[in-house]
Amino acid sequence: MRAAVLTGSQVEYRPQHVPADPRPGEIPVRVLAAGLCETDLQLAQGYMGFQGVLGHEFVGVAEAGIWSGRRVAGEINCSCYTCPTCRRGQANHCPHRTVLGILNRDGAFAERVWLPEQNLHPVPDSVPDWQAVFTEPLAAAFRIGEQIPLTSGLETVVLGDGRLGNLCAQVLHRHGCRVTVVGKHDHKLALLERINIATRLLSLADDCRGAELVVDCTGSATGLETALRLVRPRGTVVLKTTVASPHQLSLAPVVIDEVNIIGSRCGPFSPALQALERQDIELATLVEQIIPLDQVPAAITRAQSSPVLKILIDVAGGLEVP
Amino acid sequence: MRAAVLTGSQVEYRPQHVPADPRPGEIPVRVLAAGLCETDLQLAQGYMGFQGVLGHEFVGVAEAGIWSGRRVAGEINCSCYTCPTCRRGQANHCPHRTVLGILNRDGAFAERVWLPEQNLHPVPDSVPDWQAVFTEPLAAAFRIGEQIPLTSGLETVVLGDGRLGNLCAQVLHRHGCRVTVVGKHDHKLALLERINIATRLLSLADDCRGAELVVDCTGSATGLETALRLVRPRGTVVLKTTVASPHQLSLAPVVIDEVNIIGSRCGPFSPALQALERQDIELATLVEQIIPLDQVPAAITRAQSSPVLKILIDVAGGLEVP
Repeated sequence: MRAAVLTGSQVEYRPQHVPADPRPGEIPVRVLAAGLCETDLQLAQGYMGFQGVLGHEFVGVAEAGIWSGRRVAGEINCSCYTCPTCRRGQANHCPHRTVLGILNRDGAFAERVWLPEQNLHPVPDSVPDWQAVFTEPLAAAFRIGEQIPLTSGLETVVLGDGRLGNLCAQVLHRHGCRVTVVGKHDHKLALLERINIATRLLSLADDCRGAELVVDCTGSATGLETALRLVRPRGTVVLKTTVASPHQLSLAPVVIDEVNIIGSRCGPFSPALQALERQDIELATLVEQIIPLDQVPAAITRAQSSPVLKILIDVAGGLEVP
Repeated sequence: MRAAVLTGSQVEYRPQHVPADPRPGEIPVRVLAAGLCETDLQLAQGYMGFQGVLGHEFVGVAEAGIWSGRRVAGEINCSCYTCPTCRRGQANHCPHRTVLGILNRDGAFAERVWLPEQNLHPVPDSVPDWQAVFTEPLAAAFRIGEQIPLTSGLETVVLGDGRLGNLCAQVLHRHGCRVTVVGKHDHKLALLERINIATRLLSLADDCRGAELVVDCTGSATGLETALRLVRPRGTVVLKTTVASPHQLSLAPVVIDEVNIIGSRCGPFSPALQALERQDIELATLVEQIIPLDQVPAAITRAQSSPVLKILIDVAGGLEVP
């Protein structure tokens, strides 16, 4: 099969061997469509030292197992389910895990992808392929509600007007939080204003000081500093994006204001798929481009130099966004 | 009166004007004894830009108000009690607050100190002066239990074998946590071993990986990095000490392991005074030196170059530690 493969520091579209001996319980999935994520850009720059097929947001058709013939989305953490961490119910943190397209496991920018059967979730028939690609990042947005109580009226700032910031803002807004998105891009903020989510340019962010919850979706090393400026004493900062580079930071404000900083990654697929089925989340305006699989290397290079919203990868052909 | 005053970057023992016009509701307290804290050393190096009389750990005799003639310890945050933060019950974070010997308020390294009456707590008769000086730092240790549930058997690492690390370890140990103190100083770790608290040298800290709770009392910019190495996924890191200097840090582990970092400062005086009354906390081995007030400048200079345990300041004369 053909795939977009990270080799050294190059992403190449090239033939890729199908695993000769898939692990027991692993199901082949014929990929229909996939999504390019900020993490893919970071991986291509050396984050995690990953080598192999990129891609962890996808929808495909299961070719074996109980979902055989059905469209599925797939959770990305593949855990051992026998170690103490897994037995504590924290399989997403299994020290032996592989992670789809991120850690020791080939990803979904390929004609086929393999995942354990328990990682697969059937996609409701009413959810089109292009929307189903958003299941994984949308699940990441729902993770916040598993970690902290999202009470109605909670004063919330989402930092970052990109893909993940947009999805987090929509999920928090639907939980009844009073959300303001702080970003740098007028046109991206305008997309949020259209669906009645308040926004503020980063240069005017100080208007939003005193937030009870700040969610950092900037993907930038300076995001936490801005978050600490905006959060109220004893408030919560959720860190959503991994930043590869170390950076300079003073921790004194964390202690003085007794701030709670919570790292947050991945999330539950069920509420994400339910939200897609209910058409609760506005997605069409997030799609900036649809490309075929062979264009992934060029798209990654472009996205690294100028930030874009969502790039969808039409793997099977015929993907349409209304 | 005479006091140890931070002027520019110098600490001087010199005459200090008594406030001509103490704020309404403020009570003069004749200081009996005080304690030197890591924060005092940081203030002397420019932290917070404080200028004035240093000192925020003390015991004294109230000279007016309902506790007149009684020995008292004093909470250090002086709040407005009218702003939204105060009305939310977070007076310690009042944006208009002054803080004893730290922010816009002269401290306790003086013959007299002034505090609002509501900040004063009577010291039980059975608690000697030298122990009562520990009320404030001990309260800071009790703060942890207000922020997170301290369940019996909780795998806990305290980073730092200094004064605050020692007190936090004792408080957590008495809550039933399984505490290991990680430090750099054999003789300080030995004090903890003597009271049945497990210890490990920093060079062997990796033995303690997988802790559910790590409390950083290092006062060092590198403490958080060590904490992130030792805490288990979804575990909690409590930051206890303020570090003035910014430093280099990668935040990726916080997100990947979904760690919860909580800043923590000050704390409740009542449980601290109760613990002192019950003689629950071993304090005698922490006292390294007793000095008169005029020796504070020299003691700060010495402590900055070679870390010490507790230096008590005998303000009224006649302080004795058994």
